[in-house]
Amino acid sequence: MLAVCPNPALDVTYGVADLAVGETHRVLEVHHAAGGKAVNVARVLARLGHPVTATGLAGGPEGRSLRDRLAADGVQERFVAIEAGTRRTVVVVDGAGTATGLWEPGPALRPGEWDRLLEQVASLASGHAVAVLSGSLPPGAPAHGYAELVALTRHAGCTVVLDADGDALRLGLAAGPDVVKPNAEELSRTATAIDAGGRAGVSGATSPSGGDDLHRAAAILRRAGAGVVVATGGPSGITALGPSWAVHGRPPVALTGNATGAGDAAVAAIARGLAQGAGWPEIVADAVALSAAAVVAPIAGAFSLERYEEWRHAVVVQEVEP
Amino acid sequence: MLAVCPNPALDVTYGVADLAVGETHRVLEVHHAAGGKAVNVARVLARLGHPVTATGLAGGPEGRSLRDRLAADGVQERFVAIEAGTRRTVVVVDGAGTATGLWEPGPALRPGEWDRLLEQVASLASGHAVAVLSGSLPPGAPAHGYAELVALTRHAGCTVVLDADGDALRLGLAAGPDVVKPNAEELSRTATAIDAGGRAGVSGATSPSGGDDLHRAAAILRRAGAGVVVATGGPSGITALGPSWAVHGRPPVALTGNATGAGDAAVAAIARGLAQGAGWPEIVADAVALSAAAVVAPIAGAFSLERYEEWRHAVVVQEVEP
Repeated sequence: MLAVCPNPALDVTYGVADLAVGETHRVLEVHHAAGGKAVNVARVLARLGHPVTATGLAGGPEGRSLRDRLAADGVQERFVAIEAGTRRTVVVVDGAGTATGLWEPGPALRPGEWDRLLEQVASLASGHAVAVLSGSLPPGAPAHGYAELVALTRHAGCTVVLDADGDALRLGLAAGPDVVKPNAEELSRTATAIDAGGRAGVSGATSPSGGDDLHRAAAILRRAGAGVVVATGGPSGITALGPSWAVHGRPPVALTGNATGAGDAAVAAIARGLAQGAGWPEIVADAVALSAAAVVAPIAGAFSLERYEEWRHAVVVQEVEP
Repeated sequence: MLAVCPNPALDVTYGVADLAVGETHRVLEVHHAAGGKAVNVARVLARLGHPVTATGLAGGPEGRSLRDRLAADGVQERFVAIEAGTRRTVVVVDGAGTATGLWEPGPALRPGEWDRLLEQVASLASGHAVAVLSGSLPPGAPAHGYAELVALTRHAGCTVVLDADGDALRLGLAAGPDVVKPNAEELSRTATAIDAGGRAGVSGATSPSGGDDLHRAAAILRRAGAGVVVATGGPSGITALGPSWAVHGRPPVALTGNATGAGDAAVAAIARGLAQGAGWPEIVADAVALSAAAVVAPIAGAFSLERYEEWRHAVVVQEVEP
C-alpha cells in the first residue's frame, strides 16, 4: 500500500491539569507523534502487519522527526525533503480528557517542490496495488493537486482512495478516484458546491442535507468522477455507495471516546480490503470495527487491537436501497 | 555583561481568531523568538547598545534556533550544548489580545552537563563586571545550582544579580548575591519559606504579607545572604531595599499592556546601572522607566525605545523609611 500525505504534521500532545483561557499553564507531559491523515492510515496498516510505504513533503526538524518516527513504527518512509518546516499540530488535553487543538498552517512550498512529489509518487506507485491520497494540501500546492496525484496513481495501475475535503476533494474528483471517503458533513458540503458550480445562477437549486440526501449527495460526487463513495457518519456508522448498490454498517456498541483518527482507521480498512480483493460488505464491516477500535483508544491515531478483533465479526452490515 | 540562562526556551506565539477550550483552531500566525528570563535581559541590553554575552544550556533544534536568534539580535551567545532538547513556551493570543500560556518542562540534564555550564561560566565571568543569573533551573540541575553560580561569578569579581523564584532563589541566597529581584509575591513567599525553615516547630511564627511587610521580608532575604533586595510590584512601582536605606520609584503614568518581560527589563536596567557605577535612586528610576516601556510594547520581551527615552527622566523616586 502507498500512502501519500502532501501536508503531514508533527503531532504534539500537551497534558495539563486544566486549561483556562487567559491563564499560564505548566505542561505536565509532552508527547510527539508523526501525524497527518495518510500518515495515520500508514501507521494503522503497519500495526496490522500490512506492508506500507508513505510519501509526502517534509522539511525542517519537525519533518526529520516525523520521518524517524514513521520508520520506527514500521512504515517504509519515502518522503520528499522540502525547504520550509513541516507544521506542528498541538493538542492540549486537560485532566478531564477535553482536547483543544491548535493547527499550524502548512509549510509554503518553493517552486519545483510539488513537482518533485509528483515524480516521487510516479516512481513509487507502480509497485503498489492501492494508493491512499489523504489530508490537506500545503500552501503553494496547485488547487487541483489531488487530480494530478489521482491521475498518476491510476495510470500506474493503483486502485486509488482519496480522502480530502473542500476544493481539494472537489477538484480531485475529475481524475476519477476509485473511492472517496468524506464524512457525512463533508459529503453534503461538497455535493452542494458541485451543484452550485454546475447550476450557477439557476434559481431553485437545493442543497442535499441529512437522511435520504446521503444518496443524492453521493450520486453527485459519482457523477463528478468518484467510483464508490464511502460516507462515515460517526455513531450512525459507515455507508458505501456504488453506482447501483449501497451497504451500511453500524458499530456493534454505543461508543464514547476520541473520534480523532477514526476516519483514518476506516480508510486503512478500506485500503487493505481493496488490496485483498474483499467485497464491499466485508470492507464496510472491517472499516466500522477498526474505526470503532480507534474511538475507544485513548491516544488520537491509535486503536485497540483487542477491541478490533472482538468487533470485526460483530458488525451488522446490511444492503440499503441505492 | 554576562547573562546566565540555565533553562532558556524557544518562545512560540500562536495567533488565533479566538480560543475556546474543547475546540480545534486554525493558527493564523506563528512567531518564534529566543526566550527565558536571562535571554530577555540580554536582548534588552543589546538593543540599548550595551555589550552582552549570554550563556546557558541549549539542545536540539529548539536550542539551535534559540542560539541563532540571539546572535541575530546582537547578543554574543556562548551556550553549552546539551543532549536533550530545549523547551518551548507556547503563548496563544486571540483577536482580543488575551494570552494563554503553555510552558513545556525543561530538558532533563544528563550527567556532567551542569558541570559543563559551571566551567563555561567560570571561563566567561572574569571578563565581565556584572553577571545576571536568571530564570528557572532545568530538571537534573542541583537544587542549590544558583548558589554554585553565584559563588563562581562573585569569585571571578562580578557584581551578581540573581532573579529566581522558590527553592532556586532561597538556596541561592546563601552564596551572597549582590542583588536579588523578586516580585512582591515571590518576595513574600520566599521570606515565609526562610522563616519557616529557620523556626520550624516554633509556634506563633507569622508570615510577612503586604504593606510594611515588604521591609520585613526584604530583611529576611538579606539576613539569608542577599545584598540589595529589589522588589518589583507591578503598578505600584519598584523598591530597592539595602541594609540601612530604601528607595521607591513609581511609573510616570498608569499603564495597561503586556506585563510579560517587565521584570526582565527591570533587571536589564539594574545590571547596566551597576556596570556603570550608578547610584540606587538612578538605577531604580531607570528600572521603572524601562519596565514601563516593556509593558506598553505589544510583543512580550520587547520594549518601546521611544517611551523609555520619554519616561526615564520623568520617574518619581523617593527615599522611604528602611
